[in-house]
Amino acid sequence: MTQNPTPTLDFWYEFASTYSYPVAMRINALAKARGVSINWKPFLLGPVFSAQGWQDSPFNLYPAKGAYMWRDMERICQQQGIPFLRPRIFPARSVLSAKVAMVGASEGWIAPYSRAVYTAVFARDLDISSPKTLQSILEDLGLNAAEILDRAKTEEGAQLRQQTNAAMERGIFGAPSFTTGTELFWGGDRLQDAIDCALENA
Amino acid sequence: MTQNPTPTLDFWYEFASTYSYPVAMRINALAKARGVSINWKPFLLGPVFSAQGWQDSPFNLYPAKGAYMWRDMERICQQQGIPFLRPRIFPARSVLSAKVAMVGASEGWIAPYSRAVYTAVFARDLDISSPKTLQSILEDLGLNAAEILDRAKTEEGAQLRQQTNAAMERGIFGAPSFTTGTELFWGGDRLQDAIDCALENA
Repeated sequence: MTQNPTPTLDFWYEFASTYSYPVAMRINALAKARGVSINWKPFLLGPVFSAQGWQDSPFNLYPAKGAYMWRDMERICQQQGIPFLRPRIFPARSVLSAKVAMVGASEGWIAPYSRAVYTAVFARDLDISSPKTLQSILEDLGLNAAEILDRAKTEEGAQLRQQTNAAMERGIFGAPSFTTGTELFWGGDRLQDAIDCALENA
Repeated sequence: MTQNPTPTLDFWYEFASTYSYPVAMRINALAKARGVSINWKPFLLGPVFSAQGWQDSPFNLYPAKGAYMWRDMERICQQQGIPFLRPRIFPARSVLSAKVAMVGASEGWIAPYSRAVYTAVFARDLDISSPKTLQSILEDLGLNAAEILDRAKTEEGAQLRQQTNAAMERGIFGAPSFTTGTELFWGGDRLQDAIDCALENA
């Protein structure tokens, strides 16, 4: 019988999501310092936005919101001391990178892989829809890139769809989001509140 | 010649805006503790949302976002120790109350008046489109309600429209928002960042 299980927070993210980038870079360190374990849950915003009637990122659909977000990203990344380069293509086509992340979830390297993908998108302006970009990221992590990409392409699509549906059933409408127990928090600004809540729920 | 002027932050708010309520209740105390002066700037979200193609609050148009916001309001108000009662009518029709606030801006009672209006909407579920509600609020502040309401109805419409246009020109797309120098911050979560920025700009 397990007593006092480690408090856990689910971190829902999408590789094309700007505000998820600075969170991905610091969430494990922050949570560890508070004794909270992070469960990395990639999903796709496309179907979520589509269910809200949007065929593009709201940052493209609503220019004032978009202009604000790009300036805000500069400020947040500067404050956090991480590089930021506005990607030429936005939103990134993230399906393949998210499928690879599902392999990483089952094999234990999802956190460092996800940080490397975010760095590729928002600090290096690389095309993460290209298998070559992902191959290079996986090799840098000392992983068997060819095998993982093959598995991602053939096996992980259903799991990613399932996780995206689970996000929507959970009431998630954007990224980053955090869940613990029945509570949902949206936005990087709420990370500390979400960690507090995970500790209260434990 | 003025040296070392008091750092100032513009606080843009709308009486129907849920997330503006907890900010309105604490912004002056928080800013005062940091030596920052708050410039209360009411405006109307209707024309702002309309420019984005929305004829209703996004919290009504996007049910998942709305469900999240109502739960989030409960949490935020509990954390802040202020009462919260979900209004039966949302969004509130706030035009008259905002015109009265414009009178308050010129006469120096806008902050206590605005806190009382927010309490009426989000803690007492009162109809702020009714002149009687506003009359009672103004009388509780020891003001000449009849004269103020008369002035609000006849004189302040143009000023409120002008302030709403100024908000849009400033890139504001929601409430609460904060501006200092050329910087814009959106959302109650960014109040401390906005105050920090006002201090840096001073």
